[in-house]
Amino acid sequence: MWVMEATNIIGRTSKIPVPASEARAVTVRAGQRVRVVDIEGGQVGDVFAFAADDPTEYLSASHTRTHTSRLFPHVGEAFVTDRRRPILTVAADTSPGAHDMLIAACDPERYLALGADAAHASCAGNLRTALSQLGLRTDVIPQPVNVFMRIPVDASGDLRWLAAASRAGDAITFAAEMDCVVVVSACPQDLNAINGDRPTPMEIEIL
Amino acid sequence: MWVMEATNIIGRTSKIPVPASEARAVTVRAGQRVRVVDIEGGQVGDVFAFAADDPTEYLSASHTRTHTSRLFPHVGEAFVTDRRRPILTVAADTSPGAHDMLIAACDPERYLALGADAAHASCAGNLRTALSQLGLRTDVIPQPVNVFMRIPVDASGDLRWLAAASRAGDAITFAAEMDCVVVVSACPQDLNAINGDRPTPMEIEIL
Repeated sequence: MWVMEATNIIGRTSKIPVPASEARAVTVRAGQRVRVVDIEGGQVGDVFAFAADDPTEYLSASHTRTHTSRLFPHVGEAFVTDRRRPILTVAADTSPGAHDMLIAACDPERYLALGADAAHASCAGNLRTALSQLGLRTDVIPQPVNVFMRIPVDASGDLRWLAAASRAGDAITFAAEMDCVVVVSACPQDLNAINGDRPTPMEIEIL
Repeated sequence: MWVMEATNIIGRTSKIPVPASEARAVTVRAGQRVRVVDIEGGQVGDVFAFAADDPTEYLSASHTRTHTSRLFPHVGEAFVTDRRRPILTVAADTSPGAHDMLIAACDPERYLALGADAAHASCAGNLRTALSQLGLRTDVIPQPVNVFMRIPVDASGDLRWLAAASRAGDAITFAAEMDCVVVVSACPQDLNAINGDRPTPMEIEIL
């Protein structure tokens, strides 16, 4: 079931808090902008985007890499869907610029492997919950856009997992290229370094 | 519909030719090995793997990068599924070692964007056709393992598209960690450099 909710966000800025280790889903019209804000700094956000009229079309990391010939788009470049249509463009970025598009969303299996309980909050679970709060669901967990996540790649292809370097108030802004549903999960990962000392809140602003 | 076919491959080597620009699907038991051979050299193969008993579980590039902290597994390391279970391990590699796990499978939309006809053969279309020849189907086109594909990543995150450097007879061998269906598409891309002068045939060997 994929139902567009009425939104009350047109013509002014709407701010949606994303509590630490939770996610929120928002409906966005083509031409609107979505800012993802790291409130306290050092926090990774898993961002997902789905076409508003069809949840089987979604932002695809691999198609975006193919489209841009980049590991992550520059400001001004677009993320595309699994049908190769632009869905979001990077409009602005006040962070130091490290973002990841290599790593899968954390999920119960990930936490089990790290020695935690399968009931640990996860970005995959958060995505499902956030969509359900808009009356929506998806059958797949797309590979997310991990904003502020710092996964440098060395010349041999090895990845490192570093603490996010974003500062309090840093934000990345996306312009919607089509009507879409955007989900931001304030990543609950607390078993490796990526979120620094602890998971913290984020905010979604719709402009 | 996901039906395991009877196979006649146990206990001896079975060789399955993959004609240029086509794909073939094979059923493989846990413990068997699958060699993907570049017959003439300079040819990219798109490799997909699905759990034999459930097509919604498949080799996932993003989960494999997370599992290995690598852009591409070393010999001895495993590819995992979207449920983080090992499905294939790299057992041997006689090629110069360049393989890709960043780029999406080519599809009709890709060829349209490159100025070709949507009827151009594609790895996505080949996957569906090859599965159908075993009576199988999938709802998703997973991001493939692009063997012999040469997509170097520079320090700024830019990707380059180079001709495959594999030589005639070079092969990469995978060990099956679970019963699975493996599909190899001899990539039909002839509008950029990746397959050199022209697409050529490959071969699947089951050991």
